[in-house]
Amino acid sequence: MDGFGFSTEVRVRFAETDAQGIAHNANYFVWFEVARVEHLERYAGGYQRLRDVGIEALVLETHVRYLQPARFDDRLRVHARCLDVRGARFRYEYAVERSSETIADGWTAHATVDATTFRPTRVPAWLVDALGASGREDVPGLPSENRADQGRRERG
Amino acid sequence: MDGFGFSTEVRVRFAETDAQGIAHNANYFVWFEVARVEHLERYAGGYQRLRDVGIEALVLETHVRYLQPARFDDRLRVHARCLDVRGARFRYEYAVERSSETIADGWTAHATVDATTFRPTRVPAWLVDALGASGREDVPGLPSENRADQGRRERG
Amino acid sequence: MDGFGFSTEVRVRFAETDAQGIAHNANYFVWFEVARVEHLERYAGGYQRLRDVGIEALVLETHVRYLQPARFDDRLRVHARCLDVRGARFRYEYAVERSSETIADGWTAHATVDATTFRPTRVPAWLVDALGASGREDVPGLPSENRADQGRRERG
Amino acid sequence: MDGFGFSTEVRVRFAETDAQGIAHNANYFVWFEVARVEHLERYAGGYQRLRDVGIEALVLETHVRYLQPARFDDRLRVHARCLDVRGARFRYEYAVERSSETIADGWTAHATVDATTFRPTRVPAWLVDALGASGREDVPGLPSENRADQGRRERG
Repeated sequence: MDGFGFSTEVRVRFAETDAQGIAHNANYFVWFEVARVEHLERYAGGYQRLRDVGIEALVLETHVRYLQPARFDDRLRVHARCLDVRGARFRYEYAVERSSETIADGWTAHATVDATTFRPTRVPAWLVDALGASGREDVPGLPSENRADQGRRERG
Repeated sequence: MDGFGFSTEVRVRFAETDAQGIAHNANYFVWFEVARVEHLERYAGGYQRLRDVGIEALVLETHVRYLQPARFDDRLRVHARCLDVRGARFRYEYAVERSSETIADGWTAHATVDATTFRPTRVPAWLVDALGASGREDVPGLPSENRADQGRRERG
Repeated sequence: MDGFGFSTEVRVRFAETDAQGIAHNANYFVWFEVARVEHLERYAGGYQRLRDVGIEALVLETHVRYLQPARFDDRLRVHARCLDVRGARFRYEYAVERSSETIADGWTAHATVDATTFRPTRVPAWLVDALGASGREDVPGLPSENRADQGRRERG
Repeated sequence: MDGFGFSTEVRVRFAETDAQGIAHNANYFVWFEVARVEHLERYAGGYQRLRDVGIEALVLETHVRYLQPARFDDRLRVHARCLDVRGARFRYEYAVERSSETIADGWTAHATVDATTFRPTRVPAWLVDALGASGREDVPGLPSENRADQGRRERG
């Protein structure tokens, strides 16, 4: 998928369906999280590495567009990329694909906080570097800053 | 809460918390749904009445802003109102309040579809009327259309 | 319901249904937990009181029998009682009722542990007393120990 | 693992943890279901094949023993086997393993029913054959019937 350099597969569990016979809308945020956790593992040593230094990443805002229903046992590819790492904030974008068709997309905004006080704490430099590198790897020809701008325009 | 004429209470279940010690972000959509179902029951005879005539209401889009974490056993008041009923579409807005503080807000966009074919079907007239009435009841002095505009500006 | 002195109501959420059109089996443990948390609140100052003294109650074993399916929007009465408090162990029994019909029952076995080390820690005396009192209140004429025996026979 | 010829991997999702910092007990039934669905796919053409002929498999009873907590990001191997297929009933057994240690086990009992009326319907012959074959494959030297008896003794 254009602009995404990372993806993972989830398979719709029976427990994730609802009485409409489709995957319940709340699960998409769980799948986004699965992709985010694996993205962090690939590029930044894992979410646990953040937790080990006393930092949690809170979710500040979430958004999803449901384009086509997902059904039991569907194999979905969840694409994820990290954009806009600055200060104590970062943002992820997602696209959910089934057999080459995008059936949903969305984004989540995050803040890094002290795990005890829940006060904002700058994203550690190693994580900024790692996530920045993940971005450059995604779309080699495009400077990271421009892509971030594009992300903001898209959600405007 | 200003502009909302309906609310219901949910209490954060232990199963809804995560290892950050707070309510997991995906649950807010379940709570929004609980409020929407009760709102439909109050004003429109219940969601089952829609299903009984072969109509399902799909979720097209969801959005939430997390302002303060919710914790185990918190009693939350979930405010809901319906706006923008037109054609096969309608939209709900929500605010989650704990002890008079708004800790989250959001909205969901919906389409009514045939329960078998999943093709768009106009929102039944009785539901338009019922939801329209629910709106006018919310904010007596304000015409329904203006409020809808305001809703759109807010999320712009 | 015979032998139960406490109950609470849950209403089947749409998110709790699955593509069979009924409540998914995993939710019953969440409902049992809701009843257990409210039972502890009523008789023992709440689960948070345990957590405040550095104790967690782990689930060691769970069991449920599904007698009739539960459906979207069903109002269910979840009965709960605590039995067999001894050492670091206690046990809860449950019955789920819809319009006077028992549609499920089950039990959960628990251990109190140190919240940090997860090592077994005796159930605090105040909790033993409180839970014992809850039992005696349930069935005034029946000594607590006999009821526990009866519980064990029932699950034999 | 002795006596199991099938297993699948699940990884503990952050959404599946709770405020005790461990995987919530209700998720084990979801993981059992994931393993059951994949087992049916491997040996019997998938659960959807059952649904396609108008049959649903209801859960009648579930049981789990939690031996060690599971934590965020743990990779768990869920072993599953089908026993006792007769009439409209069948039973599955499970063991959850982490790095060669069994951290939980359990079983579920099922009935096949007509998807519309929910009345009991004999397990189709092809499914009996397929599940029977899955059993014989598990433990080549042991007749299927004896293993079933052993299963019943274990849960006695």
